[in-house]
Amino acid sequence: MSRYWSPIVDTLKPYVAGEQPRIRNLVKLNTNENPYGPSPKVLAAIRAAADDGLRLYPDPSATVLREAIAARFGVQPDEVFAGNGSDEVLAHTFQALLKHDKPLLYPDITYSFYPTYSRLYDIEAVEIPLDEAFRIRLADYDRSCGAIIIPNPNAPTGVALSLAEIETLVAGHADAPVVIDEAYIDFGGETAAGLISRYPNLLVVQTLSKSRSLAGMRVGFALGQRPLIDALERVKDSFNSYPLDRLAQVAATAAVEDVDWFETCRHKIIATRERLTGELERLGFEVLPSQANFVFARHPDLPGAEVYAGLRAEGVLVRHWNKPRIADHLRISIGTDAECERLIEVLKSLPPAAK
Amino acid sequence: MSRYWSPIVDTLKPYVAGEQPRIRNLVKLNTNENPYGPSPKVLAAIRAAADDGLRLYPDPSATVLREAIAARFGVQPDEVFAGNGSDEVLAHTFQALLKHDKPLLYPDITYSFYPTYSRLYDIEAVEIPLDEAFRIRLADYDRSCGAIIIPNPNAPTGVALSLAEIETLVAGHADAPVVIDEAYIDFGGETAAGLISRYPNLLVVQTLSKSRSLAGMRVGFALGQRPLIDALERVKDSFNSYPLDRLAQVAATAAVEDVDWFETCRHKIIATRERLTGELERLGFEVLPSQANFVFARHPDLPGAEVYAGLRAEGVLVRHWNKPRIADHLRISIGTDAECERLIEVLKSLPPAAK
Repeated sequence: MSRYWSPIVDTLKPYVAGEQPRIRNLVKLNTNENPYGPSPKVLAAIRAAADDGLRLYPDPSATVLREAIAARFGVQPDEVFAGNGSDEVLAHTFQALLKHDKPLLYPDITYSFYPTYSRLYDIEAVEIPLDEAFRIRLADYDRSCGAIIIPNPNAPTGVALSLAEIETLVAGHADAPVVIDEAYIDFGGETAAGLISRYPNLLVVQTLSKSRSLAGMRVGFALGQRPLIDALERVKDSFNSYPLDRLAQVAATAAVEDVDWFETCRHKIIATRERLTGELERLGFEVLPSQANFVFARHPDLPGAEVYAGLRAEGVLVRHWNKPRIADHLRISIGTDAECERLIEVLKSLPPAAK
Repeated sequence: MSRYWSPIVDTLKPYVAGEQPRIRNLVKLNTNENPYGPSPKVLAAIRAAADDGLRLYPDPSATVLREAIAARFGVQPDEVFAGNGSDEVLAHTFQALLKHDKPLLYPDITYSFYPTYSRLYDIEAVEIPLDEAFRIRLADYDRSCGAIIIPNPNAPTGVALSLAEIETLVAGHADAPVVIDEAYIDFGGETAAGLISRYPNLLVVQTLSKSRSLAGMRVGFALGQRPLIDALERVKDSFNSYPLDRLAQVAATAAVEDVDWFETCRHKIIATRERLTGELERLGFEVLPSQANFVFARHPDLPGAEVYAGLRAEGVLVRHWNKPRIADHLRISIGTDAECERLIEVLKSLPPAAK
C-alpha cells in the first residue's frame, strides 16, 4: 500500500492469466488458444492495412467490423458492441450492467476473472455452487438477484447448457440482465444470439480469440438490444474512445467473413477433442463432457499438481488451479493431433499411478 | 435510463472525440494526428509479425516494448507501464491514483477526457481556471488537494510549462500524486521523465499517437517509480490481462527504436507550425504560443463557429468547442506544408471579417 494509491487498489485481487512463457518447442495447452493459425485472408488484410494510414486514429465505433458481425448473426449493427478482447467487453459489462442493489450471481467454479471484476467495480456477488457433476443447476438460480453471468460452455469445466436451458434462465429473470459469456460456444454449444430479439435482458458475449484464432489481436464483442449496447457504449466512451486499433479491426472483419476457414478449424478441433477424451479415459482419467476447445480431467489416483508438474518437466504445459474442488483437475487445451499425442505419450511415461 | 443499467451509467458524460469522417480528400486537421506516416521499420515489423503467431495471446506485460521505452528514457523496465493508447493509461491512472478524500485538481480548459474519467470513477475534481492568457498559473495549485493532473503542453491551448515549473509543482505537492500528461511533449516541450528518480509522486504519461505517427495502433505508456506503476498494473490485471495486441507491441517497439525517423518528423512539424503561426497572424488571427503539433487561434472579428463552418464547407476540418472562454477559438492540427497552405487559402476566401 502506497500513500499515493486510490484506496480501491489495496482491495483488488488481480486475475492471474495462464503463463505465456517464451520457451521454444513447448507443447502449449494451457490458455485455450487455437492450434491453427488465422485465415490467410486475415493475414492479407493486415498486410494491406499496414501503411501510412496507421498515422490516423481508427474508426472509434469499428463500424465495418460491427456490420460484419451483425450480418453473421442476423442482428442490426447497433446491436453489436466491439471491444479490446472479450475481457474488455466483460469489464465494461460488469460496470455498466451488473451492479445493482441485489447481488450478481455466477457459478463458484467459472471464469476466474468474474470475482476480479466484481471487486474492481465493488459489485456484491454470490457464487452458486456447481452440482457434484460440475454442472450448472438452473434451479439454484431461482432466487432474487440483480443480475446473472454464466459462461456457456462453462470454463474451466467445458460443460454446456442447452439453448432451451439458457432460454429458461433468461426468461425466468426478466427483471435482471443475464449475460451469457460464449467464449467457447463454437466448439459444440448452441449460441443464444438468436434469442436477443425476444429478450431485452439478454447480452451475449463472444471472442475472436478461440474459434477464430485471433488471441493475438484482442477482439471481442457483445450482442444485445439497444439499451444494453447503449450502456456499454457510454462506459466505453468514458474510458477509451478508440479501443480497437486499425489492424485489429481489419483482422477481425476478415476473420468473421471467412466462414469456411472457421468451420474447418473448429471441426478439426472438435474431432481432436473427441479422440483425446477417449485416450485420456483409456489412461484412467475422468473427463467431463466438453463442448469447448479444452477438456477438464482428473486421474482418481494422482494429485493434479503432480500430473501438472510431470507434464511441465517434459515441456507440456496445461493449466492447474490449486483451488477447492478442482485441485486434482487439469484443464487441457485442444492442440493439434500431434500435440495431443505428445501429451498422451508423456502421461504414459509418468509414475505408475498416472497410468 | 434502462432498468438493466447499473446506476452509474445514467450519470456518465461520455467524451466526444474529434470527428473521424470517412470522406476522401479531406484536409484533416482536427485530431492532432501526425501528417507523416510511421517509420518504414514499423511497417516492416508489423508485416513480419502478421503470421500464424496471431493465434497466440500477446505478452501480457509487453516486456520487449517496455524494455525499449525504458532504454530510451533511462529508467528501469519495471518503471514503465504500457496500455491501449494513453487514454487507457489515463483511465487506469484516474482509478488507481487520483481518487482521494481531497479533490483532484486540473485546469478548467484542458483535455476534456479528464472530467469524463472523474465521473466514471466518482472522483471529486476542482477545475483551476487558466489565467487570461490561457496559461497554467502554478500559484493557483498551492492548495490542499488529493492529486493533480495537467497536460504539458496543455491541450487545446498548446502552451507549455518549463521543466523547472513542472519540478516546482511536483516538489510542492510531495504528498499527492502529480500526473504530467505529455501527449504533445515532443513538439517543443521538455519531458519530466528525468525527474521520476527523484520524485516518488510523479507519473509521466506519453503516447505514440502523435510524435510517433501511430494513432491507428493505440499505444501509450506511463513512467514512474514502482509503487505508482504497481498500482496501474493491479488495475490493469483486474481489467484486461492483454491490453496490447501482438502487432501493437511490435509496431510500438520499432517506433520507439527508430529515433532518426522520429526526430525528422517532429522537426518538420515544428517548422510547419512556426510558418503556419506567422501566416495566421498575418491574417489577423491571435495564435497562442504553441509547443504542440497544433495551434489554438482566434480571429478577433469572427466567431469561431463561423470560421469552423467556412473551413468545413471547403473540406478543411479543424476542431471547435462551443464552450465558455474558447468558443471563438479553433484548434488546428499541424498538417503537411501543403495542407496548411490549403487552410490559409480557404481562410483568405472566407467573408471579409476573417481576413
